[in-house]
Amino acid sequence: MFYNFQMKNLVNILLAYINKSLKRSSKVLDFHYPHQLKEGLEGFSLELPDQPDNLEQLLVDCRDTLKYGVKTGHPRFFNQLSTGLDIIGLAGEWLTSTANTNMFTYEISPVFILMEEVVLRKMHSIIGWPEEDGDGIFCPGGTMSNLYSVLLARFHLFPVVKTHGMSAIPRLALFTSAHVHNLIIFTQINTTFWFLSVRGKMISSELNSSIETAKSKGLVPFYVNATAGTTVYGAFDPLNEIADICKHHGLWMHVDAAWGGGLLLSNKHRVKLQGIERAHSVTWNPHKMMGVPLQCSTILVKKKGLLQECNQLCAEYLFQPDKHYDVSYDTGDKSIQCGRHVDVFKLWLMWKAKGSEGFEAQINHCLENAEYLYYKLKRRSDFQLVFKGKPEHSNVCFWYLPKRLQSILPSPERDRELHMVAPKIKTKMMEEGFTMIGYQPLEDKVNFFRCVFSNPATQREDVDFLIDEIVRLGCEL
Amino acid sequence: MFYNFQMKNLVNILLAYINKSLKRSSKVLDFHYPHQLKEGLEGFSLELPDQPDNLEQLLVDCRDTLKYGVKTGHPRFFNQLSTGLDIIGLAGEWLTSTANTNMFTYEISPVFILMEEVVLRKMHSIIGWPEEDGDGIFCPGGTMSNLYSVLLARFHLFPVVKTHGMSAIPRLALFTSAHVHNLIIFTQINTTFWFLSVRGKMISSELNSSIETAKSKGLVPFYVNATAGTTVYGAFDPLNEIADICKHHGLWMHVDAAWGGGLLLSNKHRVKLQGIERAHSVTWNPHKMMGVPLQCSTILVKKKGLLQECNQLCAEYLFQPDKHYDVSYDTGDKSIQCGRHVDVFKLWLMWKAKGSEGFEAQINHCLENAEYLYYKLKRRSDFQLVFKGKPEHSNVCFWYLPKRLQSILPSPERDRELHMVAPKIKTKMMEEGFTMIGYQPLEDKVNFFRCVFSNPATQREDVDFLIDEIVRLGCEL
Ligand SMILES: Cc1ncc(COP(=O)(O)O)c(C=O)c1O
Ligand SMILES: Cc1ncc(COP(=O)(O)O)c(C=O)c1O
Repeated sequence: MFYNFQMKNLVNILLAYINKSLKRSSKVLDFHYPHQLKEGLEGFSLELPDQPDNLEQLLVDCRDTLKYGVKTGHPRFFNQLSTGLDIIGLAGEWLTSTANTNMFTYEISPVFILMEEVVLRKMHSIIGWPEEDGDGIFCPGGTMSNLYSVLLARFHLFPVVKTHGMSAIPRLALFTSAHVHNLIIFTQINTTFWFLSVRGKMISSELNSSIETAKSKGLVPFYVNATAGTTVYGAFDPLNEIADICKHHGLWMHVDAAWGGGLLLSNKHRVKLQGIERAHSVTWNPHKMMGVPLQCSTILVKKKGLLQECNQLCAEYLFQPDKHYDVSYDTGDKSIQCGRHVDVFKLWLMWKAKGSEGFEAQINHCLENAEYLYYKLKRRSDFQLVFKGKPEHSNVCFWYLPKRLQSILPSPERDRELHMVAPKIKTKMMEEGFTMIGYQPLEDKVNFFRCVFSNPATQREDVDFLIDEIVRLGCEL
Repeated sequence: MFYNFQMKNLVNILLAYINKSLKRSSKVLDFHYPHQLKEGLEGFSLELPDQPDNLEQLLVDCRDTLKYGVKTGHPRFFNQLSTGLDIIGLAGEWLTSTANTNMFTYEISPVFILMEEVVLRKMHSIIGWPEEDGDGIFCPGGTMSNLYSVLLARFHLFPVVKTHGMSAIPRLALFTSAHVHNLIIFTQINTTFWFLSVRGKMISSELNSSIETAKSKGLVPFYVNATAGTTVYGAFDPLNEIADICKHHGLWMHVDAAWGGGLLLSNKHRVKLQGIERAHSVTWNPHKMMGVPLQCSTILVKKKGLLQECNQLCAEYLFQPDKHYDVSYDTGDKSIQCGRHVDVFKLWLMWKAKGSEGFEAQINHCLENAEYLYYKLKRRSDFQLVFKGKPEHSNVCFWYLPKRLQSILPSPERDRELHMVAPKIKTKMMEEGFTMIGYQPLEDKVNFFRCVFSNPATQREDVDFLIDEIVRLGCEL
């Protein structure tokens, strides 16, 4: 058995790691290739034994696990939408894992079930739904949240799907802009879909004509996915226009605000999501813009009771109706999962610690960083922004032009060269380990960097550092 | 900001809670009704503020959250399949949340990605798959694991489903025993299914004739779900017989060993899963019988590469093929999720700490407890076992007969009375808080208790206590 004092030793290792993560002088990562790690660096063996290892060795393993990992909370880590190391969120997660329970029923999670209700209600009111409306559930990520929305829309339109399956209903058509995140699960489910967007934004007139086309092909349009904050560009679809179209055609309107939802907490920025209150369902991931430790994602549903109707099994071996408390608190029947991890507590605790105002300040700060980077790059000739306009979210997309490329006019050859710049810089960047940023190509655009800000610890000096670092690593390419 | 010393205060609260959880003299829960908790007991308010609360208040909130919760690690908590408070597992989870990263790519989770590979390989070899076979992924629960298996089977049979959707393939039929856990998500996907079982065990001759019937109706049978350890009875389907049938008809064989998989680690008990090595895919949840903190679930797939083929999007904006390391380690494309919580580390650390032998001892111990309870109840006239035979898994199902009912011969009236006994006892049990066990009706059986053992801290004296407590609370009913 591990004893209290060993747990305290572990805590010291973890606290030291946290302090290091927040220090600019420390590296973001100490990169090793897979074969190096597998060979067992300095005795750090990943293999599983038949006999127990001793406790001292376990502590060393813990230290090594952190040492060879990536400090996602470091102020110079710009690689993902989920970053940061909110110490209250972390405290919440430690408590959650100590409680080690499950969101299945009120009887085993009384406090967490009620917290879920409170937090969801708060999120409904922030979206702008009337008080009598609003339902939802926490689930293990935005992809799952989006899956829920499709299941709900389909059931709402064709309840018979639940008892008679897909073959009892017509062929459905689902609509989404190109930059929606992960649609494979939808496509596998049942349906056809259209891509239409410009700069990551859905064009509502195109949406309308696609719906007409689908109808003329004998399909039944049922669902539109609008995105509020796309993954790469951070673009916001025109929600009010889309809501008008959905209303006109009688379609379910889902807003994927996994990334952009946090902006609802900012009086300055929430205007970008105008119309979201007209959606039938919303995906909003506190584990992105609100800085909550992963996983923390919600599907919010306007119509009360629909989640339960759609997903309940009425399996008495799971939920007993003859319990002594109000069994409407047994949320397991709303869920498509069975065991469900407690994801709400860390968010609840952070909300207590910051207040809505604290979240607002934190989110505004991230968008200020994005703006700062944007204006900096705009002035420079060795960087080129992917889009001219000011970023709407905290995403800033850009190319770096090494000296050699600055003098070449745009051309397919230049593009071919430019395409290789970001991967080369990224390689060096990871090998040196002082900062981390992602890149990708998209549609007709060759590899470009995407900088995203969701870590409140990041300051202007970190933005400056990033630019200098890219130049240092890339200028001779 | 929370400081180190506050984090240390929190740790003291958590360690005190752990010690209390493991003490028999402490209660399992301090039950309150939803309205009581919502009213704010002793100033414990669930509502979310606009302005920050102070840090002292937060620590009080943390203490209250634990106080009004349920000690799932208590040796007398028998209510769920996931129980226990493995301190090493907990240490693993604390480290995981401190690292706060995501299983998306090697670049942000180098160590955890490699650990996932190592642990999955170990699990493959325990199943008995040849070394060149075997793939898999950790996902947020057994229901998701089962969902993966259906997606894989369908794609394997009809790859066109990925590009052309459900309407491009024939109507499929899926087969499962009655006691499979949560099938709603499957039924919603596409398919028809048959129920056939006796005492929770699939009858293979019935399976065979159901397959024939489905074919004669023009359906295409494609998938059989066998269960190794059912939720309520802990029954094991005859895997070899089912494998023969699957082979004969060319069907995908999935084994849901979410609950029973742990028995593979026991030389004494693994015989119950004979034939599992013939499955195409297996669900195995370390968060149940192996005592790993929730969530920790796997889908294991025999055929290498299929997960990736089935689920990959080839979205370059997510995974860049031109990275400097071997991108086959970017497991995100195997997953139907996008962000994916790190669930492997706690299991890896526990494996290091216990060795395979430690897991074996722990699992044998749980089954010994079940046997102990079984033999005790068998001898008594105030208890009646739901089944005569010795339990195969750690589930023991039984009725308690209050004095009044002991003298009544079995009859519909007696059943009606008996049906109300378990809920009444459970109500008192929760209000008093010394132990916790679940009940449910199933098919033609009125409400009965299901005792399950997965907490290694539970000893015979706890089993004795449970029986005495049921008698104490129920004898006058
Ligand atoms: C046999 C079986 N399969 C699947 C599941 C679902 O697992 P999870 O709760 O991890 O979703 C359970 C849960 O009890 C189960 O008993
Ligand atoms: C717009 C959008 N939707 C959905 C998702 C998926 O969220 P998750 O990673 O929580 O599954 C993402 C992830 O980046 C996203 O950017």
